[in-house]
Amino acid sequence: MNVSETIKKYKLVPVVVIKDFADAESSLGALVRGGLPIAEVTFRTACAPDVIRLATQKFPEMLVGAGTVINAEQARQAIECGAKFVVSPGLAEDVAEVCKELGVPYYPGVVTPTEVIKAVSLGLTELKFFPASDFGGLKTIKALSAAFPQVRFMPTGGVNEGNVLDFLAFEKIFACGGSWMMKGSAEEIEAKTKSAMAHIGGV
Amino acid sequence: MNVSETIKKYKLVPVVVIKDFADAESSLGALVRGGLPIAEVTFRTACAPDVIRLATQKFPEMLVGAGTVINAEQARQAIECGAKFVVSPGLAEDVAEVCKELGVPYYPGVVTPTEVIKAVSLGLTELKFFPASDFGGLKTIKALSAAFPQVRFMPTGGVNEGNVLDFLAFEKIFACGGSWMMKGSAEEIEAKTKSAMAHIGGV
Amino acid sequence: MNVSETIKKYKLVPVVVIKDFADAESSLGALVRGGLPIAEVTFRTACAPDVIRLATQKFPEMLVGAGTVINAEQARQAIECGAKFVVSPGLAEDVAEVCKELGVPYYPGVVTPTEVIKAVSLGLTELKFFPASDFGGLKTIKALSAAFPQVRFMPTGGVNEGNVLDFLAFEKIFACGGSWMMKGSAEEIEAKTKSAMAHIGGV
Repeated sequence: MNVSETIKKYKLVPVVVIKDFADAESSLGALVRGGLPIAEVTFRTACAPDVIRLATQKFPEMLVGAGTVINAEQARQAIECGAKFVVSPGLAEDVAEVCKELGVPYYPGVVTPTEVIKAVSLGLTELKFFPASDFGGLKTIKALSAAFPQVRFMPTGGVNEGNVLDFLAFEKIFACGGSWMMKGSAEEIEAKTKSAMAHIGGV
Repeated sequence: MNVSETIKKYKLVPVVVIKDFADAESSLGALVRGGLPIAEVTFRTACAPDVIRLATQKFPEMLVGAGTVINAEQARQAIECGAKFVVSPGLAEDVAEVCKELGVPYYPGVVTPTEVIKAVSLGLTELKFFPASDFGGLKTIKALSAAFPQVRFMPTGGVNEGNVLDFLAFEKIFACGGSWMMKGSAEEIEAKTKSAMAHIGGV
Repeated sequence: MNVSETIKKYKLVPVVVIKDFADAESSLGALVRGGLPIAEVTFRTACAPDVIRLATQKFPEMLVGAGTVINAEQARQAIECGAKFVVSPGLAEDVAEVCKELGVPYYPGVVTPTEVIKAVSLGLTELKFFPASDFGGLKTIKALSAAFPQVRFMPTGGVNEGNVLDFLAFEKIFACGGSWMMKGSAEEIEAKTKSAMAHIGGV
């Protein structure tokens, strides 16, 4: 099962912001025990490369990617550390080039039709829609889908257990990104992850 | 009367999505009989080039353009088939180049000020605002107009008979794109088109 | 105190649209007397270069910049006339190049994460968010700030005395752009400016 297939199977990509490296193993382990062996480890924090390396070593069953990647250097570093996919808040052409060169799936963020056209012109058709709730959410995704039937979306930003099913019910949405399950202790993360997976299990 | 003048005369550009080529002649004829001899035939469906060719042959009085054009190849094909104008959901620079080279008006979609600046830098000042209702509608167009007094807008997406007059009442809006009149049988299309034209006739 | 520090001290950048050059001195003087010696003189009107030149001569204590600058030519002209900073409604790469070459701070407008990434890649991290109220206001700025911790924002568009404190209370907002104090006679501008400065004084 390749990266895209794995993401489509679980339908949920946890956005993991690790501030303190010491928390990494317990937080990632909680996701695995909660039934969601996927992590988008964000480059918003300095320890992201170390967290990705740790994750690939300690949790070989986990699909680990890098998030908030905004330039080519970060993309190379993330992939060298073991990231199996790369996510950006927006579309960064230099990141797209690195990912294409190294054969790693890239999920850039888009908001506007102009950004979707640019992504499609680069061969990218599985796109993050971010920040989803601030730019019209599902309604905007439906409008974009009408104009771009070849594209699939992963809304992120404002997705939570209360609305995730609404998003996933739309056929052009292949997964949602979210961080609501990542709050609190490892026990809480595990519990929230189990709840989320049970919740979307029937989709 | 050139393309821009014709669009400004009718103030409404029907977005025509033909799924089955067999429906093309009756749908386009309904628009003509309804008093709106303009069609933006979208490249969302495979038969678009054939529909454009048919339209230019069967309805010589009609102003036929191509919509949802997102790359240079589609733009060339559309114009070769007889499209007199080209519309994109966003701004595609390669489409702009082809249209400039071939002397065909191009109406790119924009949402943000950055996209408007790019369009203006390419010499384009009559712009589609899409998807209009998802990005603040008339209120956003007014804000953009304050910053870009040289630009005129064609909102598309969420425009309907209930709000089209509100849009057209704003002096910086030269026309609206819409598909609400394209639903149903040829008779229904004709009736809805007549209703729309009567509705906006006094603008 | 450099440009950025001065803007952060006053926290408010008045957007000054002078239609008639004869009004320039009294309007700018009203801002100075009102306690806000900053002006973003917009290139929306033809007399902008003359207004900037006048401002730098008559009000040497004032920090005068150029707004609504959308191409390199305007940027060069504005800086030659004495503009100490340059603002655009969106991100114009050629304007960024001119400002970098001439050592003048540039505040481009952004809306989407893709636009923020482009700005950051050009070395720009103090960004205008415009039109603020039409694209989700403070909520969107918070979402962007989560993804881009290195960026600071200056919301403009829809900011007024009623909501300016809400914006300024967020740590990632370094100033607001606004024009609500610029309406009416010189006396009214002075009074509204004093009111605004008293209002935000405690921030």
